[in-house]
Amino acid sequence: MVTGTEVLTGRIADRNGPWLADRLLELGVELAHITICGDRPRDIEAQLRFLAGEGVDLIITSGGLGPTADDLTVDTVARFCGRDVVLDAALEARIAEILKPMMARYSGPGAPDFATVRAANRKQAMIPAGSTVLDPVGTAPGVVVPGTPTVVVLPGPPRELQPMWHKAIGTPEVQLAIAGRTHYEQQTVRMFGLPESGLADTLRYAQQVIPNFLRLEITTCLRGGELEIVTRYEPDAAAAYSQLLAVLRERHARAIFSEDGSRIDDLVARLLAGRWIATAESCTAGLLAGRLADPPGASDYLAGGVVSYANEAKADLLGVDPALIAEHGAVSEPVAEAMAAGALRRFAADTAVAITGIAGPGGGTPDKPVGTVCFCVALGDGTRLTRTTRLPGDRADVRERSTTVAMHLLRRTLSTG
Amino acid sequence: MVTGTEVLTGRIADRNGPWLADRLLELGVELAHITICGDRPRDIEAQLRFLAGEGVDLIITSGGLGPTADDLTVDTVARFCGRDVVLDAALEARIAEILKPMMARYSGPGAPDFATVRAANRKQAMIPAGSTVLDPVGTAPGVVVPGTPTVVVLPGPPRELQPMWHKAIGTPEVQLAIAGRTHYEQQTVRMFGLPESGLADTLRYAQQVIPNFLRLEITTCLRGGELEIVTRYEPDAAAAYSQLLAVLRERHARAIFSEDGSRIDDLVARLLAGRWIATAESCTAGLLAGRLADPPGASDYLAGGVVSYANEAKADLLGVDPALIAEHGAVSEPVAEAMAAGALRRFAADTAVAITGIAGPGGGTPDKPVGTVCFCVALGDGTRLTRTTRLPGDRADVRERSTTVAMHLLRRTLSTG
Repeated sequence: MVTGTEVLTGRIADRNGPWLADRLLELGVELAHITICGDRPRDIEAQLRFLAGEGVDLIITSGGLGPTADDLTVDTVARFCGRDVVLDAALEARIAEILKPMMARYSGPGAPDFATVRAANRKQAMIPAGSTVLDPVGTAPGVVVPGTPTVVVLPGPPRELQPMWHKAIGTPEVQLAIAGRTHYEQQTVRMFGLPESGLADTLRYAQQVIPNFLRLEITTCLRGGELEIVTRYEPDAAAAYSQLLAVLRERHARAIFSEDGSRIDDLVARLLAGRWIATAESCTAGLLAGRLADPPGASDYLAGGVVSYANEAKADLLGVDPALIAEHGAVSEPVAEAMAAGALRRFAADTAVAITGIAGPGGGTPDKPVGTVCFCVALGDGTRLTRTTRLPGDRADVRERSTTVAMHLLRRTLSTG
Repeated sequence: MVTGTEVLTGRIADRNGPWLADRLLELGVELAHITICGDRPRDIEAQLRFLAGEGVDLIITSGGLGPTADDLTVDTVARFCGRDVVLDAALEARIAEILKPMMARYSGPGAPDFATVRAANRKQAMIPAGSTVLDPVGTAPGVVVPGTPTVVVLPGPPRELQPMWHKAIGTPEVQLAIAGRTHYEQQTVRMFGLPESGLADTLRYAQQVIPNFLRLEITTCLRGGELEIVTRYEPDAAAAYSQLLAVLRERHARAIFSEDGSRIDDLVARLLAGRWIATAESCTAGLLAGRLADPPGASDYLAGGVVSYANEAKADLLGVDPALIAEHGAVSEPVAEAMAAGALRRFAADTAVAITGIAGPGGGTPDKPVGTVCFCVALGDGTRLTRTTRLPGDRADVRERSTTVAMHLLRRTLSTG
């Protein structure tokens, strides 16, 4: 149950429903309903009543735990569960401790004084009697209210909700509520460069040749050019999964890049150990360098990059010959290669990736329509992989997907090098 | 009511709920609930019963209109509304016409023959008796089932649902169902640099001093350091909103950056018209340049940038004196200023932004803990704004929020310059 007028009205996309759905799936807990409502107690209560009436064992709520008067989830859940709301003095003290350093960042006229803030946040230390407190990650604590159904109350911001869910799942109350779950194995295979219809064909074939195929619960998902195949099965159907994996390997060896759920970003980070990489980006304008810097410890392999959005920048910062741009166009394989060579040289790197393309909506031509993107991966030993792709979607899709293609080209180059 | 196991389990993000929420808001129709369930008739029916029980005038469903056996929405809605399902022969013929050219694209072994496809799609021409057909945009027609509540049944793919919603809203049945809608005004104010509790304090004050305060429906949302305040009111409460706006301006003039809903990215893009900007990024590693390149037409103002992740890159590509780094550390105001100066020079730009910080999880010191980020905005005329902030959250939060701080510093510099 996701609460929050800003989510209901679409101003914020709900990230908690999908994330919790994934966690429940991993646990083997069946999810029946996701509901979203605004900050009105009447609607919150109606949804609680509906879900409880459906006979669920567990209700998870997100949102409505802030200090403002329109945050009403705890009160409403308490009333629904027939419990009083009581002040947890120890919790109030913990919240005050959390607020002190945060307050230190604000000063000047208009900034609230500490007493005001503390009073506003006393509200957050009021919890349903007999419930278990989940310590705050931000300033909002969660609670687990035991009962039938058990209700887990979590804050709305995903970076607070996610660690607090892991705490919630460890409480005896939640363990009791999900005791009836089925234990499943779950395996994930990832592929790149195979259309979904090709996989559908293989799965039809697998169904014919694998005896217990129907005991495998397979879901496939195409996202940004990558195919994710998630298979869930009860432990005694493991042989069927092994056979499925054999079929996938036999037919799509080249497309499979991960059999253990690892993502391309993890694989590339591992392959970059001991290397020194630089980027040269045009249409992606830094998104690839930004993505390479995502993992903690990226400074071990990331030298840096040049965003050469303007042609002058390609010449001045990467040493791309303007004549090359004049002859082939800024979006061309020779320019991508010159950009990669320039990045190698300028950063004294042993690995470089260059991207130049037309993200749209303008700039397309009949020869080079929007979505045309040229890539070059170059290594210090002279190895070079150059590719041109035509990517679907709008400006944001093309830019995002370009970084994914670059990651796969990097992986291919580094794992065969 | 969004149906579909792939949406419930989070493998596909629901885009229909938020989109329809926006359309309803525009119409002044109040949205009470969004519900999501899988393809099980039992769950679909339970949600219909819940929503009808809440006394809504209109239920909109999305999904479950495909030709396969697990697509059950129409049957379930018909049963719920107490109507038989009948074949619409004219609709069946229209679907057949639509399918012919689509079938022509598939051929070869494994392709379904036309008779099979047509039989599967006869299912899609079965509609609740007495309902109004919404012609298909793909192959799935929608229906409007009159009654209390009126039920609008739409397909799941957004590119089909969206045009069909516009048809649905034109039917007399839907117009009748939403006849009681209220005409609302909606205004959005955005702030930066004010804690949520400070706003809560101001709103409590506003409630005391503004006569019709309670006629304003205010929702506040804190996201990445920005506060969004959305106020909805009936036209005759406009005076109360003006007074609220006056209070906000009086108490938080410096924090308010938008009173008309404009986002910081739009404001910065507008301020950059006629300018030529370059970035120099360390911890954000290209995310700011990537963000500046988001709007179509960014090539009018974005020269490029340097991702100087390693100290060598700061020296070699931006001309930062290594002695400066040795003396003050790479994360320091003097280094941020030297990076900005280097970006101005290297890209022959008139505007530059530099970011250098400690995103974590490692690298923090007692003096400069994780989250310490230094910024410098420099203009060609010598104007310079330098700031150090301590940002909360994990590595991803610090990096993301750093780009937001940079956007606000840019705005501040360019709008006073």
